[in-house]
Amino acid sequence: MRNLLTFFLLISSTLSAQIPEILTIRKYRQLHEHEVMKDYFQFLSIPNIAADSIHLKQNADLIATMLSTSGVKNIQLLYPTTKGVPPAVYGEVIVPGATQTIIFYAHYDGQPVDSTKWFQGLHPFKPVLMDGIVTDGAKRVPYPSESQNFNPQWRIYGRGSSDDKAGIMSIITAYRAIIASGLQPKVNVKFFFEGEEEAGSDHLHEILEQNKVLLHSNLWVICDGPVHQSGKKLVVFGVRGDTHLELTTYGPLRPLHSGHYGNWAPNPAMELVQLLSTMKNNSGKVTINGFYDDVTPLSAMEKSAIKIIPPVEGQLKNELGIAIEEVKGRGLTESINLPTLNINGIQSANVGKLSANVIPTKAIASVDLRLVLGNDWQRQQQKIINHIKAQGYFVTENEPSLEERKRYPKIIQVNRSGGYNAQKTPMDLPIAQMIIKALQSTTSEQVILTPTSGGSLPLFVFEKYLNAKTISIPVANHDNNQHAENENIRLKNLFDGIETMAAIMLQSGNH
Amino acid sequence: MRNLLTFFLLISSTLSAQIPEILTIRKYRQLHEHEVMKDYFQFLSIPNIAADSIHLKQNADLIATMLSTSGVKNIQLLYPTTKGVPPAVYGEVIVPGATQTIIFYAHYDGQPVDSTKWFQGLHPFKPVLMDGIVTDGAKRVPYPSESQNFNPQWRIYGRGSSDDKAGIMSIITAYRAIIASGLQPKVNVKFFFEGEEEAGSDHLHEILEQNKVLLHSNLWVICDGPVHQSGKKLVVFGVRGDTHLELTTYGPLRPLHSGHYGNWAPNPAMELVQLLSTMKNNSGKVTINGFYDDVTPLSAMEKSAIKIIPPVEGQLKNELGIAIEEVKGRGLTESINLPTLNINGIQSANVGKLSANVIPTKAIASVDLRLVLGNDWQRQQQKIINHIKAQGYFVTENEPSLEERKRYPKIIQVNRSGGYNAQKTPMDLPIAQMIIKALQSTTSEQVILTPTSGGSLPLFVFEKYLNAKTISIPVANHDNNQHAENENIRLKNLFDGIETMAAIMLQSGNH
Repeated sequence: MRNLLTFFLLISSTLSAQIPEILTIRKYRQLHEHEVMKDYFQFLSIPNIAADSIHLKQNADLIATMLSTSGVKNIQLLYPTTKGVPPAVYGEVIVPGATQTIIFYAHYDGQPVDSTKWFQGLHPFKPVLMDGIVTDGAKRVPYPSESQNFNPQWRIYGRGSSDDKAGIMSIITAYRAIIASGLQPKVNVKFFFEGEEEAGSDHLHEILEQNKVLLHSNLWVICDGPVHQSGKKLVVFGVRGDTHLELTTYGPLRPLHSGHYGNWAPNPAMELVQLLSTMKNNSGKVTINGFYDDVTPLSAMEKSAIKIIPPVEGQLKNELGIAIEEVKGRGLTESINLPTLNINGIQSANVGKLSANVIPTKAIASVDLRLVLGNDWQRQQQKIINHIKAQGYFVTENEPSLEERKRYPKIIQVNRSGGYNAQKTPMDLPIAQMIIKALQSTTSEQVILTPTSGGSLPLFVFEKYLNAKTISIPVANHDNNQHAENENIRLKNLFDGIETMAAIMLQSGNH
Repeated sequence: MRNLLTFFLLISSTLSAQIPEILTIRKYRQLHEHEVMKDYFQFLSIPNIAADSIHLKQNADLIATMLSTSGVKNIQLLYPTTKGVPPAVYGEVIVPGATQTIIFYAHYDGQPVDSTKWFQGLHPFKPVLMDGIVTDGAKRVPYPSESQNFNPQWRIYGRGSSDDKAGIMSIITAYRAIIASGLQPKVNVKFFFEGEEEAGSDHLHEILEQNKVLLHSNLWVICDGPVHQSGKKLVVFGVRGDTHLELTTYGPLRPLHSGHYGNWAPNPAMELVQLLSTMKNNSGKVTINGFYDDVTPLSAMEKSAIKIIPPVEGQLKNELGIAIEEVKGRGLTESINLPTLNINGIQSANVGKLSANVIPTKAIASVDLRLVLGNDWQRQQQKIINHIKAQGYFVTENEPSLEERKRYPKIIQVNRSGGYNAQKTPMDLPIAQMIIKALQSTTSEQVILTPTSGGSLPLFVFEKYLNAKTISIPVANHDNNQHAENENIRLKNLFDGIETMAAIMLQSGNH
């Protein structure tokens, strides 16, 4: 009880308007926003998908240049031992007298793109300004001349504009603004920008292990993901884990005419929908055996922090055209603190104009499993696989052979992705309290504290390989379409992000 | 009982080897196969998908030219009143003294193509010769020089090669062979080649109505679809009806990050799979209320004809890699004589490399409903819609409005296609018996008689608008991949088809 009291006193004592140093940073941004935007548009124009190693390297080089022109020292591209992996970009600023070190993390790689799905006139790697949300009828804004300002309600559309080049731009610009304004960070500042996050950060641990001394810190500030749906600033103490399964069911070896062979030949699409439908009940609860059993319950402090998060469900339903949440009465925060099972995509033959009268040869579903503290990603995959077997399926990790097809009435290929577990940092660590204080110094609104993000980052690697603490401070707007078509950043979020990152550099140390 | 006896006596009395006239036709084909192939490759090189009216017209023009050079008279392109519809190609040969008229029907348009799915090196509209089935490792065959023969086991790959340009080529070549060999048809021969079949023949009835006198006949011979899986020749006395529904479920208005919003936001892919899974039980029976209730039972004669059809299920399972049929113990012919419900395609967001961590905005399924005698296509659609409503769905025919999305927890757009009912011609009509006799004259093997094809053609229009009888005589191999990628025709089937069509022209009349 005393802990909880201390916690809330801490929060309320730090509720204050912007401090003068933050107003200085804002002034810098207002005077230099054309420079910032020019750099950002150039950055967003470089494709950043996993398969495109040449452009990924160009992204890394541009980041290194931006760090260099900001006066950052010891800039390096950190490669893992494994060949062909995009480098992390490192840089550092050692502040005389500083006793603590914060590493700022963001990632420059982006999710896959399907250009054909982007709104007319938009392209993932040709960033443009819009005066709002495209699907709400926003109009394109001509790029302003030097004498004009950027309206903070405008948005930049492009892959990575929110996830997560906005993090990199906020961090670098914050440091630039501090130096150019004659201020000085209170902590040693290190920069670490990863290039493999959306591909699963499979080699991040190698980079961390090889650079233990270089990457020593008191805290990693992870700048990724969106701020709270209420628009309020957010400190996130954990992330969900994540893993995937790709499921493929099989019908006839060649596509069959659905007249001549229906319904004699088994239909793999019908098999897949019947299988997937057994994984959730009609109330939205996952019905996989033991699915929720190993979840670590929330602490009392976490429960209390959740209680003061402003409800956003009504606003979200309105905005997203949702009548009711998946599990009736279960709020967003509660949902985020539970493991999930989601169909990310499903495909069999074609629909619409390309649809033909066939019995498809196969049907594929991508299933996403988000994990919370207590879940283990491989155990979670295995629960699903056990469930599939219990439905009578022969499970294989390969394309089934003709003999297997002829032997097993129900056959499925299950491909397990990599994955990682959830991670949480306790809310009551001293450095966590400093971060909260720094954020609160930038705004008169209550900063929101949440035990975990709904999203995932492989933060376990920082603990495992560096014994390091992590706290996430996102900057993007919540309606940014990250991971999908029409990804965008609202300029105000980028501008606020610069102030947030600067506040952490200026306020967090014991200098 | 007497009828049945007569029927089987008829069949056995006509069991005989090829008659001399058929050997004459074969000789013609053997001597002229380079000409035939040259024409056929040219024909297959012209794209024939519904949206491509320019190329459809080129197909029609080429057919008219082939008819004209064969000496066919009164060649016309028959257009419906509705503008923009591809024409049917008509021609006729009036035989002095002939008292009966047979119209030969086939269609020159093809199913939609998704070129990316065709086997490497194949293209829907660049026909090539292969020495077998591509997916079994067949090799490409260089086009033979004039001094070389075409191996009847080779296949031509290309859209329309089986469905249904093979029909047109068989019919025209049969007539050419008859005339060039100094023979004469026993019936008046009319030709009618449609260009809108795969798009649903929506305007065929207009063409028929406008040309009642021109199209007078005693029988339409419909040359479409595959021969029996045993390879034996086939007379088909009916077709199934067909109609479609496209079902679209809705989730959030914009794609959401499956971490930040899963499982709070409803997932339209999960909704769709749960809905579709209620339409069939795990034993493969359709569970839609009243689905099988209005089926007209088979006649005794039809049941007897079915009994002597050679079983092909074992061969098919082996070839298709199927362990068990959809409804355990239900044979192919029995399945074909029942209405079906099949998922032709399903799609929501992406799978595989394009898969992203999203909750999709919508999920779409194309559902195919095949109909047998007794079913009504609109009533069949309505049964499904009633079932969907009974699952708690708000059903709309349009993209739902924001208000509707916010009001109804379960919302679905259902788009009804056009459709038509099944059609059957009684097996014991005199003209039907003449056709059976003509086919039997081309082969020493038992010709197979089946009450209905599994596939569909809008044959009801011939009855409705012309009061005409129809019988289907297919020519394509059963493993032709029609309606899908890698469509092909085995040359022997094309060669046999020429003999079959010639036999009907030479043998069917009372001349």
